[in-house]
Amino acid sequence: MFFASDNSGPVHPKIMQRMAEANTGYAMPYGNDEIMEEVRASIRAQFEAPDAAVYLVATGTAANSLALACYTQPWQTIFCAQHSHIEEDECNAPEFYAGGAKLTKIPTEDKMAPADLASAIARRPANSNVHMAQAGPVSITQVTEFGAVHTLEELRALTAVAKAANLPVHLDGARFANALVALDCTPAEMTWKSGVDVVSFGGTKNGCMGVEAVIFFDPAKAWEFELRRKRGAHLFSKHRYLSAQMAAYLQDDLWQDLARSANAACARLAEGLVKAGAEMIHTPQANMIFTRFPRAVHQKLQADGAKYYVLDGDVATGPADEILGARLVCDWSMTDALIDQFLSHF
Amino acid sequence: MFFASDNSGPVHPKIMQRMAEANTGYAMPYGNDEIMEEVRASIRAQFEAPDAAVYLVATGTAANSLALACYTQPWQTIFCAQHSHIEEDECNAPEFYAGGAKLTKIPTEDKMAPADLASAIARRPANSNVHMAQAGPVSITQVTEFGAVHTLEELRALTAVAKAANLPVHLDGARFANALVALDCTPAEMTWKSGVDVVSFGGTKNGCMGVEAVIFFDPAKAWEFELRRKRGAHLFSKHRYLSAQMAAYLQDDLWQDLARSANAACARLAEGLVKAGAEMIHTPQANMIFTRFPRAVHQKLQADGAKYYVLDGDVATGPADEILGARLVCDWSMTDALIDQFLSHF
Amino acid sequence: MFFASDNSGPVHPKIMQRMAEANTGYAMPYGNDEIMEEVRASIRAQFEAPDAAVYLVATGTAANSLALACYTQPWQTIFCAQHSHIEEDECNAPEFYAGGAKLTKIPTEDKMAPADLASAIARRPANSNVHMAQAGPVSITQVTEFGAVHTLEELRALTAVAKAANLPVHLDGARFANALVALDCTPAEMTWKSGVDVVSFGGTKNGCMGVEAVIFFDPAKAWEFELRRKRGAHLFSKHRYLSAQMAAYLQDDLWQDLARSANAACARLAEGLVKAGAEMIHTPQANMIFTRFPRAVHQKLQADGAKYYVLDGDVATGPADEILGARLVCDWSMTDALIDQFLSHF
Amino acid sequence: MFFASDNSGPVHPKIMQRMAEANTGYAMPYGNDEIMEEVRASIRAQFEAPDAAVYLVATGTAANSLALACYTQPWQTIFCAQHSHIEEDECNAPEFYAGGAKLTKIPTEDKMAPADLASAIARRPANSNVHMAQAGPVSITQVTEFGAVHTLEELRALTAVAKAANLPVHLDGARFANALVALDCTPAEMTWKSGVDVVSFGGTKNGCMGVEAVIFFDPAKAWEFELRRKRGAHLFSKHRYLSAQMAAYLQDDLWQDLARSANAACARLAEGLVKAGAEMIHTPQANMIFTRFPRAVHQKLQADGAKYYVLDGDVATGPADEILGARLVCDWSMTDALIDQFLSHF
Repeated sequence: MFFASDNSGPVHPKIMQRMAEANTGYAMPYGNDEIMEEVRASIRAQFEAPDAAVYLVATGTAANSLALACYTQPWQTIFCAQHSHIEEDECNAPEFYAGGAKLTKIPTEDKMAPADLASAIARRPANSNVHMAQAGPVSITQVTEFGAVHTLEELRALTAVAKAANLPVHLDGARFANALVALDCTPAEMTWKSGVDVVSFGGTKNGCMGVEAVIFFDPAKAWEFELRRKRGAHLFSKHRYLSAQMAAYLQDDLWQDLARSANAACARLAEGLVKAGAEMIHTPQANMIFTRFPRAVHQKLQADGAKYYVLDGDVATGPADEILGARLVCDWSMTDALIDQFLSHF
Repeated sequence: MFFASDNSGPVHPKIMQRMAEANTGYAMPYGNDEIMEEVRASIRAQFEAPDAAVYLVATGTAANSLALACYTQPWQTIFCAQHSHIEEDECNAPEFYAGGAKLTKIPTEDKMAPADLASAIARRPANSNVHMAQAGPVSITQVTEFGAVHTLEELRALTAVAKAANLPVHLDGARFANALVALDCTPAEMTWKSGVDVVSFGGTKNGCMGVEAVIFFDPAKAWEFELRRKRGAHLFSKHRYLSAQMAAYLQDDLWQDLARSANAACARLAEGLVKAGAEMIHTPQANMIFTRFPRAVHQKLQADGAKYYVLDGDVATGPADEILGARLVCDWSMTDALIDQFLSHF
Repeated sequence: MFFASDNSGPVHPKIMQRMAEANTGYAMPYGNDEIMEEVRASIRAQFEAPDAAVYLVATGTAANSLALACYTQPWQTIFCAQHSHIEEDECNAPEFYAGGAKLTKIPTEDKMAPADLASAIARRPANSNVHMAQAGPVSITQVTEFGAVHTLEELRALTAVAKAANLPVHLDGARFANALVALDCTPAEMTWKSGVDVVSFGGTKNGCMGVEAVIFFDPAKAWEFELRRKRGAHLFSKHRYLSAQMAAYLQDDLWQDLARSANAACARLAEGLVKAGAEMIHTPQANMIFTRFPRAVHQKLQADGAKYYVLDGDVATGPADEILGARLVCDWSMTDALIDQFLSHF
Repeated sequence: MFFASDNSGPVHPKIMQRMAEANTGYAMPYGNDEIMEEVRASIRAQFEAPDAAVYLVATGTAANSLALACYTQPWQTIFCAQHSHIEEDECNAPEFYAGGAKLTKIPTEDKMAPADLASAIARRPANSNVHMAQAGPVSITQVTEFGAVHTLEELRALTAVAKAANLPVHLDGARFANALVALDCTPAEMTWKSGVDVVSFGGTKNGCMGVEAVIFFDPAKAWEFELRRKRGAHLFSKHRYLSAQMAAYLQDDLWQDLARSANAACARLAEGLVKAGAEMIHTPQANMIFTRFPRAVHQKLQADGAKYYVLDGDVATGPADEILGARLVCDWSMTDALIDQFLSHF
């Protein structure tokens, strides 16, 4: 019963299979393998972006940090939601890759409000005050840290604020697939058609072993990205195994199927929790649930080996009926049986 | 006939097998997987270093840059051989990770001479001159860039120079296994018993998919390394697949067997080349050959699809009997048949 | 009528005089001049800190950034008040010098509350979570950005929070003298006796030309500071002219006399403003006033050439009786006549 | 008898006088002072560069590092002479400001040979190899570290190599004035008319207190420089005192007169040395002499209080007739009497 994160599940068999198939003889290193050609073509086709520059790295933090660095000067600040992954969970990697740039947190419980973003940007008008950090890119997380999905309208409202100030937009899509199937839109609609300049397109949390694509809709940053990737030590010699993962992930909409599985598992779990009387802190929209239920239930779950983040307080000690929060994440491999086992403790 | 590099061959089946076996259910992320326990124990045992801190990353440049950064202040200089990988082939990654430190190249055709190293260090006495880059770690490459192997005596002569100046020593062991079996010594002898403080223990070039261990014989740097690895975006969530590679690599001396295969293939190829009249630029000691032979032979080889680096000149155009250099590398998977096919063109 | 900042007034004649006296013949460069010996001895004596390491730089941002860098690792975060100078007015210099570290703003109108600082630190426990920026130094500004002075009790309450978490404390004393004379305490009481580890001791805003001392009460950081200062290009060859400024500033309590003049001017101005019906936004405690009065008065003042920051709104356009904020700063050279001229417009 | 460096002499009285005159009342801070307008106009006129962007900083290392950073990406390498100041005497400041870029030393005793520069650049062709540091700017030092002056032809030969590879050119002109009067050419001829893009125009070594101008002939880098200067903590609030130094320095050709004095003193000293039998290591062309003479003379000089760098060996101990090298530098204030006193010991 592992609901702690979607970063800890197994690799989908089709992806393992493709890696095994790639394991014959020699292949050109450093991204010059033939499978990468297939990946590039597939992403360009699926994103309706024939000129896009497409690169692979092995971690989400690398994808975010390298993508943002291409759009950030060291004297600038990146605008992001208060609790975004780049701010809270990457140990200053964005600052490192961007040469000491700052991150400006837009105060919010989860999604940024366009007005708050606009206000933060307005405090840093272009070319006017050498003393302050200058306005840099806007980074939006889709799915958000609390499991919400920006509608296309919400995305566009945020990117419009950025564009009005002539600022580039990055989309942290560690759970891109989960958001896409929740919205039932096209990749193009959720990215460049909504004003996104560069996207971290996640694979790792959705059935891959360790691969993320960075997609630049304007290829002007291509060579700079290649140099930054190498300098960051993120260029793989045996790159074909990154390519193979991503190729399998992209083929026959596997990536969307896996996300649908994860989201469906999450919905089933959420439904069961609501029936069982648990409170939803946020309405789950993709594959993450933030909920609250009594300590006694936490204790039974933990006794049965359930793994998940308790948001506050001490499960072991305290009144049995005290309500404690929990974060529950479903990945593509979550089964109905495990969900039912989890729910059986309520 | 791929002799271009050992970074482009396939993954050994036992390593693929272990990755497949690891692919069941959930595993703790970020290096807390159980297989990593096995890796740590195995390396500590094989290196006779019960307190060693052991970490995995996916690229050799990451291993080198992160290891060196733990021992380098931004106002220092790293001493290394003129043509070392960290100087020539890592696109300023060591400088990036060490916060803008400098690299001082010790002039040499291949190995550093202890006297030259001592002289370079002597120009930067400790705590004396705030204007110059301060002396930092010494980095030694084993196997060298030109296929040579430092004897234990040579290693100790270099580390003694470093120790006399109170400087730490890093060993770039991208081809650690190839050197070890060439010397027929123990891992401890080639590292801490010879004065090495931290080693990049390569797997990728010797049958792994993409994994290198960084081994600190003094665990004082452990937590700093963990933070640097995360900040560098090199901490894998699905870390078990790095662990699985390294575990299989370490098991039953597979790593040494693979290196012996590569070195034997190289010896066979070298013998054939010498018989065929090719000149050896350096005496091959591990799995790399630097040789010279006439353009006409290069042309026949390339027509037959052979891949390798030509060191100088243009194969296509020029006198048929002009002598051109070549770098030839054998990995674990090189076959006698391919070698004989290669030699057949002489 | 220049009330815009204390960074724009003239240099006190005694300081100019000492610089002129220093201008004879040759002097040892790079901080080895004899006047620096005098400066060092004087600061050690006045701060009752015989082992203190003392250095001079020419700008406040250099003093802050270099001092903090000595106590900050690149994967850490510096805790500071929301509107502190290092966060808002130094264009990412602290991040630059600290290798890409983060700044964590403690929400507050002006001073940090110890409970808020404790809470922010508590979210980053030591050695526990590699994903987040690690807790680094605490930086306190004395005089604050809004003209307040921490009492010794307030300082100690903040440093106690830092010490409880084993974190070092930096004091941004760009207006150190103004605070000291307001508190009527000793330099030692306002620094190391209150738990401060390193202080930026400002001279520029209080009658010097461009000099700040960085004082480490623990000299362990001395050599590192010297290297960081040189690497940051802040080591002056003709250092004697920095030394001469600071020597004159320190002699016969000139620094305190100048601060008393500035504070007295400010008090006189504040008193006049209150009598004239202006509202005080903050109670002025040193040499800065934050106040509000009608647009009509602003217009008269500006017509008469008064210079100061208007905090909000447009002086030129709007209702005459609308209330607009102003920041008014007095330096040591402010005269009663100019204050009276200013007040005459109310 | 101070011949150790031109960085340790006094400030010329006209410069002190102008600083004193500037010391009245308030002035706009941060480079917005009126004297800076005069400086900018004067430099533009004297350099025949009406669009040049002109900035002041207080140290030569700041001028070099900030100027180079505007033309260097972190994955590039700066080409410079082996013993250049930026390589040997700035404690990694250029690397720091350029975000971890590399410096490539062109092997030479003093000046770079165009063929050597071309060869080093040719090893790093543009847009071709992601593994190596990419070619960045070329930095030329005028006067060189060993007292030589590039002729205009020599300058143009070097900049032509850079331009052929589309690389920008920086001139380290810490001793710009000494070179200019030696060549008897115009500032334009020695800079933009010879292919220089940005120059560090030194004042400190030639009679100023601590000021250097950075002059961009293409103003496209202006705003970036302003941000880099602030972020580097090199923007002075009381900027008028930098401006005043430079204004006096520029007025009525004072800067050239001072350089002529220094060069003439040097010529007089060199002539005396040659007559006395000292060997010239390099032919002095500006205000520096590299020479050799017996230990016995060194001992007499030192006994008389002469200060200068001994290039090798120990003055105190050894045969009286052993020949030891010396570096002797004359600044603007060097007197005939001191020179004669020095020569009297031969």
